[in-house]
Amino acid sequence: MNNHKEIKIGVVGATGYTGLELLRILATHPNARVEVITSRAHIGMRIDQLFPAFRGFYNHKFSDPDTDQLNKCDVVFFATPPGIAQKATPKILNSGVKVIDLSADFRIRDAAIWQKWYGKKHVCPELIDKSVYGLPEINRQHIKNSSLIACPGCYPTTVLLGFKPLLDLDLVDLSSLIANVASGVSGAGREAKIDNLLAETSDNFKAYSADGHKHFPEIEQGLSDIAGNPVGLTFVPHLLPIIRGIHSTLYAKLKVKDIDLQRIYEECYENESFVDVMPLGSHPQTRSVKGTNVCRISVFRPNHGDRVVVLVVEDNLVKGASGQAIQNMNILFGLPESTALDKPALLP
Amino acid sequence: MNNHKEIKIGVVGATGYTGLELLRILATHPNARVEVITSRAHIGMRIDQLFPAFRGFYNHKFSDPDTDQLNKCDVVFFATPPGIAQKATPKILNSGVKVIDLSADFRIRDAAIWQKWYGKKHVCPELIDKSVYGLPEINRQHIKNSSLIACPGCYPTTVLLGFKPLLDLDLVDLSSLIANVASGVSGAGREAKIDNLLAETSDNFKAYSADGHKHFPEIEQGLSDIAGNPVGLTFVPHLLPIIRGIHSTLYAKLKVKDIDLQRIYEECYENESFVDVMPLGSHPQTRSVKGTNVCRISVFRPNHGDRVVVLVVEDNLVKGASGQAIQNMNILFGLPESTALDKPALLP
Amino acid sequence: MNNHKEIKIGVVGATGYTGLELLRILATHPNARVEVITSRAHIGMRIDQLFPAFRGFYNHKFSDPDTDQLNKCDVVFFATPPGIAQKATPKILNSGVKVIDLSADFRIRDAAIWQKWYGKKHVCPELIDKSVYGLPEINRQHIKNSSLIACPGCYPTTVLLGFKPLLDLDLVDLSSLIANVASGVSGAGREAKIDNLLAETSDNFKAYSADGHKHFPEIEQGLSDIAGNPVGLTFVPHLLPIIRGIHSTLYAKLKVKDIDLQRIYEECYENESFVDVMPLGSHPQTRSVKGTNVCRISVFRPNHGDRVVVLVVEDNLVKGASGQAIQNMNILFGLPESTALDKPALLP
Amino acid sequence: MNNHKEIKIGVVGATGYTGLELLRILATHPNARVEVITSRAHIGMRIDQLFPAFRGFYNHKFSDPDTDQLNKCDVVFFATPPGIAQKATPKILNSGVKVIDLSADFRIRDAAIWQKWYGKKHVCPELIDKSVYGLPEINRQHIKNSSLIACPGCYPTTVLLGFKPLLDLDLVDLSSLIANVASGVSGAGREAKIDNLLAETSDNFKAYSADGHKHFPEIEQGLSDIAGNPVGLTFVPHLLPIIRGIHSTLYAKLKVKDIDLQRIYEECYENESFVDVMPLGSHPQTRSVKGTNVCRISVFRPNHGDRVVVLVVEDNLVKGASGQAIQNMNILFGLPESTALDKPALLP
Repeated sequence: MNNHKEIKIGVVGATGYTGLELLRILATHPNARVEVITSRAHIGMRIDQLFPAFRGFYNHKFSDPDTDQLNKCDVVFFATPPGIAQKATPKILNSGVKVIDLSADFRIRDAAIWQKWYGKKHVCPELIDKSVYGLPEINRQHIKNSSLIACPGCYPTTVLLGFKPLLDLDLVDLSSLIANVASGVSGAGREAKIDNLLAETSDNFKAYSADGHKHFPEIEQGLSDIAGNPVGLTFVPHLLPIIRGIHSTLYAKLKVKDIDLQRIYEECYENESFVDVMPLGSHPQTRSVKGTNVCRISVFRPNHGDRVVVLVVEDNLVKGASGQAIQNMNILFGLPESTALDKPALLP
Repeated sequence: MNNHKEIKIGVVGATGYTGLELLRILATHPNARVEVITSRAHIGMRIDQLFPAFRGFYNHKFSDPDTDQLNKCDVVFFATPPGIAQKATPKILNSGVKVIDLSADFRIRDAAIWQKWYGKKHVCPELIDKSVYGLPEINRQHIKNSSLIACPGCYPTTVLLGFKPLLDLDLVDLSSLIANVASGVSGAGREAKIDNLLAETSDNFKAYSADGHKHFPEIEQGLSDIAGNPVGLTFVPHLLPIIRGIHSTLYAKLKVKDIDLQRIYEECYENESFVDVMPLGSHPQTRSVKGTNVCRISVFRPNHGDRVVVLVVEDNLVKGASGQAIQNMNILFGLPESTALDKPALLP
Repeated sequence: MNNHKEIKIGVVGATGYTGLELLRILATHPNARVEVITSRAHIGMRIDQLFPAFRGFYNHKFSDPDTDQLNKCDVVFFATPPGIAQKATPKILNSGVKVIDLSADFRIRDAAIWQKWYGKKHVCPELIDKSVYGLPEINRQHIKNSSLIACPGCYPTTVLLGFKPLLDLDLVDLSSLIANVASGVSGAGREAKIDNLLAETSDNFKAYSADGHKHFPEIEQGLSDIAGNPVGLTFVPHLLPIIRGIHSTLYAKLKVKDIDLQRIYEECYENESFVDVMPLGSHPQTRSVKGTNVCRISVFRPNHGDRVVVLVVEDNLVKGASGQAIQNMNILFGLPESTALDKPALLP
Repeated sequence: MNNHKEIKIGVVGATGYTGLELLRILATHPNARVEVITSRAHIGMRIDQLFPAFRGFYNHKFSDPDTDQLNKCDVVFFATPPGIAQKATPKILNSGVKVIDLSADFRIRDAAIWQKWYGKKHVCPELIDKSVYGLPEINRQHIKNSSLIACPGCYPTTVLLGFKPLLDLDLVDLSSLIANVASGVSGAGREAKIDNLLAETSDNFKAYSADGHKHFPEIEQGLSDIAGNPVGLTFVPHLLPIIRGIHSTLYAKLKVKDIDLQRIYEECYENESFVDVMPLGSHPQTRSVKGTNVCRISVFRPNHGDRVVVLVVEDNLVKGASGQAIQNMNILFGLPESTALDKPALLP
C-alpha cells in the first residue's frame, strides 16, 4: 500500500474523552483525513469552539450522527456509550465502510451475557460473530481481514496482556487469578456526575464495583480464550485521582517451580512495538506511558515463592482505547502499525 | 451566658459543601444541638448514608425544607443557592428564630443591583435593611443585636479584610484597586457540571468571569463602605485545582510615602482571633488555613515603590462561609467567638 | 482518674509528618501539655516560624533531642526514623517516663529480622520483649500496663484489622493471603527526595517494593499472632498521588462456604470506636477518614464464590500513626480512648 | 535548505525538566540527530534506565558535559542552572557550533544586573552582546543570523507577549504595569527540595518572591525594549499545584479610550504560528497548551473602564523553555518554524 494513501474517517461521539483522543492522535497521522465529526448535542458548532486545544488543527463543525456522510468514509470510529454503535453499524458496513467500535457493543460473544451486564437487548447479535476483538497482540491476523473491530476495554487490555505469557504456557492455577486494577478518572467519561468532581475525587482513593464490574465478562472471556479453559477471576477496580492511566496488579499461583519468568515475558512480547517488558526489578509508572500507546509490564515472584505478581500500566485513553483503535486502523489499512503512535510520553 | 446553653439549630440545604461544612464544625461545638437537617432531594434518607464521613456523628434523616420544625429552632442556617433563603426567611424570623444566611440573598443593599447580578427579583427587599453583613471584623457590634445575618461571600471576605487597613487610613488611590483572586473548586459547589470534573480541572488553571463576577458588587459595596467613598475595582477570579482555599493578591497605589505597612496591618488586627498578620516577608499558603477559620495576611511593598501588594488566604468553606457563619452564631448567642473554631489546620 | 489531669508530653522528631500530626491532635487534647518539642536540625527556632499553621497554638522553640527535659515528661513520643528511638529509650524509661514509639524500632520481636530489614543492629534488643505492640483492637489490655508502646506501621494497621475477623474464626486458607495496598505520599515522609516531588508523583501511580517492603515482616508477624499459625502473605504496596490516606484491598480464599461475612465483621468490631464496618455493598473512601482516627472496612464475596475481598481505609498519619499513638496514650493514662480523636473527617 | 538535512545536536544537562523536554520534542523532529546527552551525575548510565519513558527512543548513555563531542555538533542546547552555560559557551562557539542557552546566562544585557540577581560574577560578559534574546515573535530576524541564542525565561515569555500589542501602540500608562503570574511546579526544576514535595504543594497555593524574583530584571528589560521607554512593573509569582503550565494575568491602565483591543491583539499576532489570540470573551486554560508550543492570549476591558486585563497561558516547559528553544533552532537552521512543534495539546 502506498504510504500516502488518504483514509477518509468519521468519528461518532467526538465530545467524549475517547473521541477527543482519537482526534488528538489523528491530527498527526499522515494518512488520516477526518471528514466527519459528530455530536448529537452540538450539531453545527465548530469543534474548536468547544475545545480550544484544537484551534489550528480542526475547523470542522459537529455533524448529526445520522448523517449519510459517514457512509462515504473509509472507516468510522464509534466513541459512544453502549448501545449506539450496534444501531448504526449495519448500515455503515453495508456501504462498504469499515467500523472500529471503541464501545462494548461487539466485545462479548454471547449476546445474553451482554444483555445481562449492559441492561439492554443487543439489536444486531448476528454482527457479533463477524466482529474481531481488536487486541492486536492476540488477534493481529484476524484484524487484518475484518470490517468490524471491537476494540477492547481499557481494563481488559492490561489484564489480558499481563496474564497472556502465563496462560500461553499453562504456568498458573487458572482458579487463582486476581486482577487488582486502578484507573484515572478519564475512564469514567466526560459526563456531569457529582462523583467525578475534583472536589470529590481529588485527594481520594476508593474501590468500586467490587461486587461486579462490566469489564468482568470481557476479561473472563478473553482469559479463557487465551488459556483454552475456563478461568476463575477476582476483579476489583479502583478510582485513581489522576486524569489518565491504568495500573493493574495481577496475582496468580504458579504451578511450576523452576521457571525464568522474566525471560518468558520478554520472549512473548519481543516483536511487539507496544508492549514493553521492563528490566527485572523495575516498577512501571503510569506517567511513563502518558499520551502513548505503550503498555509496560513487570513481573515479580516475591520471595521466590509460588505467587507471581505482574504489574501493567497503560494510558487508558490510548492503548486502552483510542490509540489501540488507531493501531487497529493502521493494521486494517496496511500501514505501519505504529503510524502516529510513535511519540514519547508527556513527562513530567 | 451559661456556657452550657444548648442552641437548637436547623441547617437548610445540607448536601452542598457549605452545608456539610456547617455540620462538620457543629459536630464539635459544645453548645450546638442540630435538630433539623434539610434536603429537598433526599427527604427521609439518613445523612450518614449519603455521607459516611458523618457515621457516628449524625443519625438524622434529611427533612423537607418546608418543615415547621425550623420554626422551633433557635437559629436556622441557609446554605442554599440564591433565591431560596429570601423566600423562607420572613416566616422563620416571625417565629422568633434567628437566621444566618450563607447565600447572597441579603448581602447587597440595593435590590435592583441584586436583581441585575442574580437574575431574579428579590422577594423580600424590606428584610435587606434589617439584615447585617456578617463580617465580624467590621460589623461585630451590629451582629450582636441582629436577627438576620448575611454572611459574606468567600472572595469578598478576603478582599475586604485585605484592603481594610489601607482604606481605614486613606493610604491608597481608591481608583487603583485590583483584586486578583483564586479559589479551589469547592467554591463552585457540589453540583454535577462537566467543567468541574477532575479530568477537566485537575492539572489546569484558568481565569473566569473576567468580564464580571457576582461577587463584584458585594466587594465594591464593602470597600466603599470601609473607605467612605466610591472605589474603582478590577476583580479577576481564577479556578485553582485544589479542593479548599482562596488566595487573593491585592494591588493598590500608595498615596503616602513614609509608612510602616507592617505595623499598620498588625495594629489593625491585633485583637482579632481569626485574622493573622504574618511576619514581614512571609507568604501565606492556603494549606496553612485548611479546615480553619483563620485568614492570614501578608503585606509587601516591592522595591519600596508606590505599589502595595497584599496577600490573603482563607479556607473558602470556613472563614469564607461556614466557619464565619458559626463565628456569627457564637456572637449572636454570646458565646466565646472561637467556640468550635479553635483547631489547627489539617497539614499536610 | 481525674479528667483534668495534665499529661506532660515530649515529642521527639517534630518536623516530620507524624510529629506534626501529633502536635495537631494534641493541640485540642484537654489533658495534654506539650513541654518539649525537639528537632536536631532546628534547635532554637520557634516551631510556628517553620510551620505557620501552628501560629496561636504552639510558641515553643525546638529543643535538642538530647535534652534532659524529656526525662521530666510523663510520656515521650518518638516520631523518628528507624534506629533513633532505641538509642534514647532506655534512659527515658529509667526516669520513669513512658515511651510511645511511632517508628519501627520495637515492632519486630526478632531482633535478627529487624536487622535484616532495617539494615542495622538493634541496640537494645532486651527492651523489645518489654514493649507492647500498640494496636488497641488486639492488645488493649497489655497496652494499659506497659511503659513502652511500639505503635504499628501504617500499612500493618489496615492489614491486621482487615484480616482479623477472618483469622479469628479460622475462615480462610492461611497460605492465600494477599494485601494489595496503596498509600498517599505523606507516608514517604517529609524528606527532600526527587521521587516525591509533585512533578514526579502527581498524575501518576505505581507499585513499589514489590520484591520486599519493610512492613512485610511486621504484617507477617501480626497475622501469624492472630491466626496462631504461620501465614503465607503476598504484599504489594503502591504510591497514591494524594497526601493522606491508605487503601488496602485484601484477598483470601475461604475455607467455609456458608457464612455471613457481614455479620462476622460487624460483631468483631461492634465495641470498637475506631473501626467502622460499612453497610453491605459500600466501598470505603480514603477521604471519609481524612484527619480522623477511624478505620473503615467493607467485606465482599464476589459472585458468592470462594474469594473474600476486604476493603480497608485509614488516614496513614492518624490511625496509621499519630492518632493511634494518642489512642495508646489515652489508654495508658486512663482517659476515654477517643479523647481528642472524636472529630469528623475534613470533607471535602 | 534541504528538508532532510540532519542537525547534529548536543544536550547539556539532560536530567532536568527542560533537558528532558528537549529530548521529548526532538524525538519526533525529522531533522534532529541527537549525538550527545550529558549529565555530570550519571556519566555512563543509559538515559532510558533513568527515564523509562524514553525506552525505544534513546539508547544513549549520559556523557560527561566536558566532552569534546559537543564541539562536533551543529548546535548545543544548555538546559543547566545559572552559571554553567557561560563557562562552556566560548569554546563551543569557537568550534563553530551554535549555542542555544535555556538558562538565564545571556538574557540580561547588563552584567552587573545579572550579578546582582544571580549572585555571581558573569565570566564572559563580552558574549552577552553577541547573543540574541530568543523570542521569535520579537527578534526573529536577529535570531536567524546569530550563533548564540539566549532563550527567554518562562514567565518573561508570557508577560512580554501579553503586553506587546499594548506597548507597540503606546496604549497604556507605562508606570501601571502589573503581572500576576502563576506557574506549575515543574518550573521549580527537578531538584530534591522539601518545598516541592507533593505533600507540601498539592492542595495548596501561595505567592512567592513577592519582594523580588529573578525574572523581574529580564521582564523589565524586555518591556522597556518594546516600549522604547522605562516601565514601572509590579510582578508577583505564585506556585500552582500542577505539573506544567503558566498563567499570567496582566493589568494596565489605558491611556486611550476608543480602541478595539480585540482587533489590535489579533492583528499583532495574525502571522504568528505560536501565539493564538482567543475569541472575544474566552478565557484561556493552561491545559489547552499542555505539551505544545502555543501561547494563548485573551484581552478584556472590564466594564469598559480604563483597565485592560490580559490573560496569557503557555506550557512553561515548551513555549516557556524547550519548545521555544527548538523554535529557535528551526529558525537558525532554516527549517519551517513549527517543525516538531505542530501537535495538539494532551487534553484531558
